[in-house]
Amino acid sequence: MVGAQDFFFSGLQKTGNTSNALGSRVTPVGVTQIPGLNTLGISLARIDYAPWGINPPHTHPRASEILTVIEGSLEVGFVTSNPDNRLITKILQKGDVFVFPVGLIHYQKNVAHGNTIAIAALSSQNAGVITIPNAVFGSKPDIPIDILAMAFQLDKTVVVNLQSKF
Amino acid sequence: MVGAQDFFFSGLQKTGNTSNALGSRVTPVGVTQIPGLNTLGISLARIDYAPWGINPPHTHPRASEILTVIEGSLEVGFVTSNPDNRLITKILQKGDVFVFPVGLIHYQKNVAHGNTIAIAALSSQNAGVITIPNAVFGSKPDIPIDILAMAFQLDKTVVVNLQSKF
Amino acid sequence: MVGAQDFFFSGLQKTGNTSNALGSRVTPVGVTQIPGLNTLGISLARIDYAPWGINPPHTHPRASEILTVIEGSLEVGFVTSNPDNRLITKILQKGDVFVFPVGLIHYQKNVAHGNTIAIAALSSQNAGVITIPNAVFGSKPDIPIDILAMAFQLDKTVVVNLQSKF
Amino acid sequence: MVGAQDFFFSGLQKTGNTSNALGSRVTPVGVTQIPGLNTLGISLARIDYAPWGINPPHTHPRASEILTVIEGSLEVGFVTSNPDNRLITKILQKGDVFVFPVGLIHYQKNVAHGNTIAIAALSSQNAGVITIPNAVFGSKPDIPIDILAMAFQLDKTVVVNLQSKF
Amino acid sequence: MVGAQDFFFSGLQKTGNTSNALGSRVTPVGVTQIPGLNTLGISLARIDYAPWGINPPHTHPRASEILTVIEGSLEVGFVTSNPDNRLITKILQKGDVFVFPVGLIHYQKNVAHGNTIAIAALSSQNAGVITIPNAVFGSKPDIPIDILAMAFQLDKTVVVNLQSKF
Amino acid sequence: MVGAQDFFFSGLQKTGNTSNALGSRVTPVGVTQIPGLNTLGISLARIDYAPWGINPPHTHPRASEILTVIEGSLEVGFVTSNPDNRLITKILQKGDVFVFPVGLIHYQKNVAHGNTIAIAALSSQNAGVITIPNAVFGSKPDIPIDILAMAFQLDKTVVVNLQSKF
Repeated sequence: MVGAQDFFFSGLQKTGNTSNALGSRVTPVGVTQIPGLNTLGISLARIDYAPWGINPPHTHPRASEILTVIEGSLEVGFVTSNPDNRLITKILQKGDVFVFPVGLIHYQKNVAHGNTIAIAALSSQNAGVITIPNAVFGSKPDIPIDILAMAFQLDKTVVVNLQSKF
Repeated sequence: MVGAQDFFFSGLQKTGNTSNALGSRVTPVGVTQIPGLNTLGISLARIDYAPWGINPPHTHPRASEILTVIEGSLEVGFVTSNPDNRLITKILQKGDVFVFPVGLIHYQKNVAHGNTIAIAALSSQNAGVITIPNAVFGSKPDIPIDILAMAFQLDKTVVVNLQSKF
Repeated sequence: MVGAQDFFFSGLQKTGNTSNALGSRVTPVGVTQIPGLNTLGISLARIDYAPWGINPPHTHPRASEILTVIEGSLEVGFVTSNPDNRLITKILQKGDVFVFPVGLIHYQKNVAHGNTIAIAALSSQNAGVITIPNAVFGSKPDIPIDILAMAFQLDKTVVVNLQSKF
Repeated sequence: MVGAQDFFFSGLQKTGNTSNALGSRVTPVGVTQIPGLNTLGISLARIDYAPWGINPPHTHPRASEILTVIEGSLEVGFVTSNPDNRLITKILQKGDVFVFPVGLIHYQKNVAHGNTIAIAALSSQNAGVITIPNAVFGSKPDIPIDILAMAFQLDKTVVVNLQSKF
Repeated sequence: MVGAQDFFFSGLQKTGNTSNALGSRVTPVGVTQIPGLNTLGISLARIDYAPWGINPPHTHPRASEILTVIEGSLEVGFVTSNPDNRLITKILQKGDVFVFPVGLIHYQKNVAHGNTIAIAALSSQNAGVITIPNAVFGSKPDIPIDILAMAFQLDKTVVVNLQSKF
Repeated sequence: MVGAQDFFFSGLQKTGNTSNALGSRVTPVGVTQIPGLNTLGISLARIDYAPWGINPPHTHPRASEILTVIEGSLEVGFVTSNPDNRLITKILQKGDVFVFPVGLIHYQKNVAHGNTIAIAALSSQNAGVITIPNAVFGSKPDIPIDILAMAFQLDKTVVVNLQSKF
């Protein structure tokens, strides 16, 4: 029989470990963490940013996102789809809210002197995350070098170098 | 042409005014506040609670909710539907997350010594709120007295008195 | 292999037993009664009302409802959501049809001299029913007394008395 | 401002005129009749059958149906899709309920000595009706004769004769 | 672990065998053929037509269709629902595209001198097909003769004859 | 009044002009080209590839895709979401079909000696296309250099150079 523990998650007050190359950490709270979210079409994540940390360009294949700055300041942006590829961007302060429509590439960057914290809500119990650099240059196995070289108009040696980093 | 302002809301860091009979205040951030939420299936609200303030029993007719405690402590609960009417309840601390499934009656009560703050995310751009006491005893015009007296097994004078308060 | 029995239910011509405190009886016909309703997004119920019987204020968390009076007369109403809490009400005669939008609190009362019968169709295979007095004052365990006292602006002894009835 | 009249329809107690070749009459109650059904995903119809009247093979392109016999007796059936084309059939008495899944061809025939009445609920505000003989042999303009002759393995003169009737 | 084979189907370049009474052949590519289509809401079919072959009047109970002529020419049509029953028709050449809305009866006929090939995309992983003549006159068991005779205004002996063919 | 022209598009037999840096051309057939697709949840595109042409890594924010090779051979792949970032890849010949689930990054490359042609069906009337290199390095205005440098672990001069190309 289901009980309170099936609708509960603890720990979102904890600072995520941002000691990594990007200076950010996402702590997801979806149906994996809370079984009672099944079929309910919503989930959460906490995002921590070290000073100048970024949440790199990414998409959620199955969700729109609404983000609230809890502490600090964020530069945020998303890019509209073809053919415009318009960048919509904003500097957010504590208490500001911003929306990223489903499937669009978006990013955040800490522009405060100290740490920044945000809460993101997502319109799916299992939104998925595609981090663009990791998916493009860090897939397992690699996307063929000639395809990336042609797509990004990069020298093949640059592509190989990029793939070695991810 | 749409721009950043269509996906943006400012002010969620502000403490809501809880100087009212319930000692709580809901600040909604839905499609009315952010036009860019249209068709995206998600919205937010900030909830402030004075010490011992409550968010009284209510439902959202078109959304599930996932709530995060930002500051303080909350006693939360929801009641399952017929025939069980089970109360699922939990004491939440800062950083705890709890889920209220679509359409079920739920409430929160501040159990901290000071103010409590929560962020609620909702799975609709326009979730709707039905505060049970207000809808039942405070509708305009009133629900007929005899119906409420029979439904709640109350004396008609008690019903009249209740209706006068809402 | 599925057959006719999986799409069939018998017995909706039978008068429901209204010998109870509310003078009404709901006979549901959903996916529990008809397995073939699975995924089809629709179900039914018959409602019987003794003279002056009521179907007390309730909501369906997952369905809109369209009700037809088969015999007798009904006073029906629903209350819109915050902030208006408008009561929309109507007296229905045999052959009249009325709609209750998803998640809104609604009720019916027999205003005929004899029994009244209605058929309600619901936009879900499993609509759920939340009877407001039972969920609020009759949950197991009880919602804390102080929350209900504050929410309904009732004396705590009145709340305890109400809880003892449900 | 919306009011009760937007959620209301009157007249479903009236016997439909079955003085026609099929001995049946459908009285629809959808979003055209009740504007408040908009977006709610449900509608109704009353069906009257003269003795031996039929509701000929038809489909609803956008809805499943759940039918209740109010008076009389009905022989009902639906045919599953390719490759089985199984006929699922049942004799219904007063108070029996039967389900027709979305898009499948179904029919009803009065098998009582007197009139029969049914209420059908549909999982769309605007379910649509495609009466097979009318759509196939009575379209405006006609479906080309050679297509129908080949499809139904009929002589072209029979097709022409059929088209002249609808 | 899923792999490429779960998202793959081979063989759509093969000419379907049209040596049958209708001179056409449908080769479906849905979730049965490609497990990875599960929950994705889309599927395909190749349709081959011998000279003068037809795809007889049929519906898809759970999908709209968009058809492209790959080789040859097609006469296509669909019939709108009651009360209009309008036939919307067009002659398609190679490279032409046509849409059949969900649940409506539609057909195609090869009007080229040689074979015609089309690719149909459907808005469901499992669209279903109801071939009208087969469902109406070829169900197992048969739809009662008197119902078909009355519905199609045919002599009962003609109905029996039709049923014997399907 | 709607007619056949509202459900029709002509020209998909025409070879797309692949005289561009990528050696490919997408010809879309969505609700912009065919108004009758409105609400039907499906659309098409023809894709032409010069020898060694590519359709660079991209996503559709609102649709899954099912692709058929009409002429030639394609190397196709998609990358699963975090944390696996698995590349699922396949060489397709004429008549092969492959599926790209909603929102995932995917690409195609012509591996035939001559031109290759594919038809893609999409589970939305307006699927949207996000070409990763264009959205990331070619947005208007540019995504800030430091964000891209950190995200892709590139020297800022390389980022500036990339941005100048798109």
